[in-house]
Amino acid sequence: MKAYKDYTTEELKELSAALHVQYKEYQARNLQLNMARGKPCAEQLDLSMGMMDVLSSDSDLLCEDGTDCRNYGVLDGIKEVKVLMGDMMEVSADDIIIYGNSSLNVMYDTISRSMTHGVMGSTPWSHLDHVKFLCPVPGYDRHFAITEYFGIEMINVPMSPTGPDMDMVEKLVSEDDAIKGIWCVPKYSNPQGYSYSDETVRRFARLKPAAKDFRIFWDNAYTIHHLYDGQKDQLIEILAECKRAGNPDLVYKFASTSKISFPGSGIAAIAASKNNLEDIRRQLCIQTIGHDKVNQLRHVRYFGDIHGMEEHMRRHADILRPKFELVEQILEEELGGLEIGTWTKPHGGYFISFDSLPGCAKAIVARCKKAGVIMTGAGATYPYGLDPNDSNIRIAPSYPPLADLEVAVKLFALCVKIEAVKKLLSMREETESVK
Amino acid sequence: MKAYKDYTTEELKELSAALHVQYKEYQARNLQLNMARGKPCAEQLDLSMGMMDVLSSDSDLLCEDGTDCRNYGVLDGIKEVKVLMGDMMEVSADDIIIYGNSSLNVMYDTISRSMTHGVMGSTPWSHLDHVKFLCPVPGYDRHFAITEYFGIEMINVPMSPTGPDMDMVEKLVSEDDAIKGIWCVPKYSNPQGYSYSDETVRRFARLKPAAKDFRIFWDNAYTIHHLYDGQKDQLIEILAECKRAGNPDLVYKFASTSKISFPGSGIAAIAASKNNLEDIRRQLCIQTIGHDKVNQLRHVRYFGDIHGMEEHMRRHADILRPKFELVEQILEEELGGLEIGTWTKPHGGYFISFDSLPGCAKAIVARCKKAGVIMTGAGATYPYGLDPNDSNIRIAPSYPPLADLEVAVKLFALCVKIEAVKKLLSMREETESVK
Repeated sequence: MKAYKDYTTEELKELSAALHVQYKEYQARNLQLNMARGKPCAEQLDLSMGMMDVLSSDSDLLCEDGTDCRNYGVLDGIKEVKVLMGDMMEVSADDIIIYGNSSLNVMYDTISRSMTHGVMGSTPWSHLDHVKFLCPVPGYDRHFAITEYFGIEMINVPMSPTGPDMDMVEKLVSEDDAIKGIWCVPKYSNPQGYSYSDETVRRFARLKPAAKDFRIFWDNAYTIHHLYDGQKDQLIEILAECKRAGNPDLVYKFASTSKISFPGSGIAAIAASKNNLEDIRRQLCIQTIGHDKVNQLRHVRYFGDIHGMEEHMRRHADILRPKFELVEQILEEELGGLEIGTWTKPHGGYFISFDSLPGCAKAIVARCKKAGVIMTGAGATYPYGLDPNDSNIRIAPSYPPLADLEVAVKLFALCVKIEAVKKLLSMREETESVK
Repeated sequence: MKAYKDYTTEELKELSAALHVQYKEYQARNLQLNMARGKPCAEQLDLSMGMMDVLSSDSDLLCEDGTDCRNYGVLDGIKEVKVLMGDMMEVSADDIIIYGNSSLNVMYDTISRSMTHGVMGSTPWSHLDHVKFLCPVPGYDRHFAITEYFGIEMINVPMSPTGPDMDMVEKLVSEDDAIKGIWCVPKYSNPQGYSYSDETVRRFARLKPAAKDFRIFWDNAYTIHHLYDGQKDQLIEILAECKRAGNPDLVYKFASTSKISFPGSGIAAIAASKNNLEDIRRQLCIQTIGHDKVNQLRHVRYFGDIHGMEEHMRRHADILRPKFELVEQILEEELGGLEIGTWTKPHGGYFISFDSLPGCAKAIVARCKKAGVIMTGAGATYPYGLDPNDSNIRIAPSYPPLADLEVAVKLFALCVKIEAVKKLLSMREETESVK
């Protein structure tokens, strides 16, 4: 394939006309496809339907220690679900608090508590003039929405395939005590699917923040969400590494079963040091008497243990893998060698990150929408929705059936081409007019 | 029965000796009984076991509008659960947001949001020098714990059988713009089991608060929790009454199914005006993608509609009624005419409120504990745990089996007698020494 930049202007114009004809054909099909969010597809949800059978009116709903899961009590989760979630999160059952149905909610509550009550005795953030967060970019829009909602200033930190720019993180964190946290998706990152290198994790654990109440918000959303049995990304466990580095209280680690059992009906958890957990429990006992223990028990009875859960994740992978591979194949076939876009090839998680020519992302997403394909909004992967290059687009291949996905990605590639040609032509015009 | 105050000192001393002999006999039994919290008993929980069968792996988990309850989405609850909870809360399905498993959590989050973001555009409470709440007393300890946690000053307002002292509420609320709310359990109040009169509700709806962001926190925890089919307390619906009074935004109404289905595994909701709900949704969409829809669907499929739920509540009442009646019978038999205590006789809810002679409550509860019977801590029904009279004790008859309850209440009555005699004797000694 010849790169578009090597086309003559005349060739680009001819190409543009041809691409527009194709686009019109797509428009005529009245498509209604959605690649916007990291939603599991129906077949994935079917995998967990057995969960509806593990508890019946004949079941005892008792924990191993005799606790009746049907009644009030047990603030931070039943013992056996702590073991299960602990194994999943690679920490001890004692290092965990089990929450309700959403790790996003746990993260929100964590920030909210820090605003109103500080962190382990520090000044409540709402009493400070400036509170800042580091945001590896591109990243997860719902993280950024939380910090924006609380008026926390967000500072972009560039991501690379090994993780955030640690030189920058170390420098900023050690110099500015208004910086209270950093959003991380360390494994199969959202949206790139990158996993932090050992060096990155080690440097995180050895941060020397100017702010005592600085915390790493380690959102391990995709901890066992591998696509390939033979290519499982493995990270150094951050709690243990922080402890080794003499910084045991530095990190909050979040996870949930949202993309394991049912989104919205799963179980979320936080893992942290004893000091942090005590700090959290002091608040949690005011907020609630306890989370849904029947659902905790349902998860334990269904999965049994971490091996059952991992086996279950293999079945998820069997459904997701062909979708990721289809996207990668189409992008390669349609865009390979054209030098108008790059994309990631993750071993797990829920997303592929695409970068167009600068200044094209918004137009591509809008063009997809006009032909009936909804992508994640351009800019969404950056704080305040502001992608400085207007180039990043998150692709979420999980939800549509394969046949739909094929159509959607082909249309997407077509829109990438159209906007790239448009961009190149306008750049040449500018150059002409300068002459 | 002769009132203890009419006993001679010699008679009181003899009585004291005899009561202590009885007490020693109780101590020898090594009792382990608990009347501390409003927990349903095992038989009540058994009533809802059918809920474990309504969804199976063969079920579709689709809403009437086709929404797949197994996946992400639906921020404020599926339509059919809004209808069910709306009927239960006597409001329209449109006036509701469905939450997770706990109305306490909803109340906490409501205060927390008001602290960080204000109410419908008002100054965040955390930016104000003084924030105050009115607390009808005695009241619910977990309410008071929330406001205390956020550093909100609590002002006691006396309760009567028709509700809080409305002269005082109207005066305080209209004069002091630091007063931002009032905690109410309007029906079968915690701990008295009082239900607000029509006049009380009408006066609430017509409050003229100095603070625009003042809200009535109407915790309708026991809305359909009647004990007697023929004696159902009925309140004027507060949202409608506020609207009629031209104060549509004045109230948040809370409820849950915690004591209908399973505590901790039920569904909570808030009802409020459109303006309030919009204000809440702006925050909620940052905090979560949605609550547990599978559990929402489970509740709808199990109860069917409000009639199914009310039928279910009759079965709860059949279990609870004998317990309340047993407590009342024993108290009457043991304490009637002695003039050393008064107690309420509720038509619903979970508690009986007992008032001892002033200065005796702590000693009574401590004495019960030393003989193996745990009561709600004395003082718990007041803000900061400070009962100015040291006389109120909450009795929670729901959890122990009838046989245990009989023993526990008899011991309680004995402890009331012992401490009353002690009090009367010490008062006489004081009088003597003054002479």
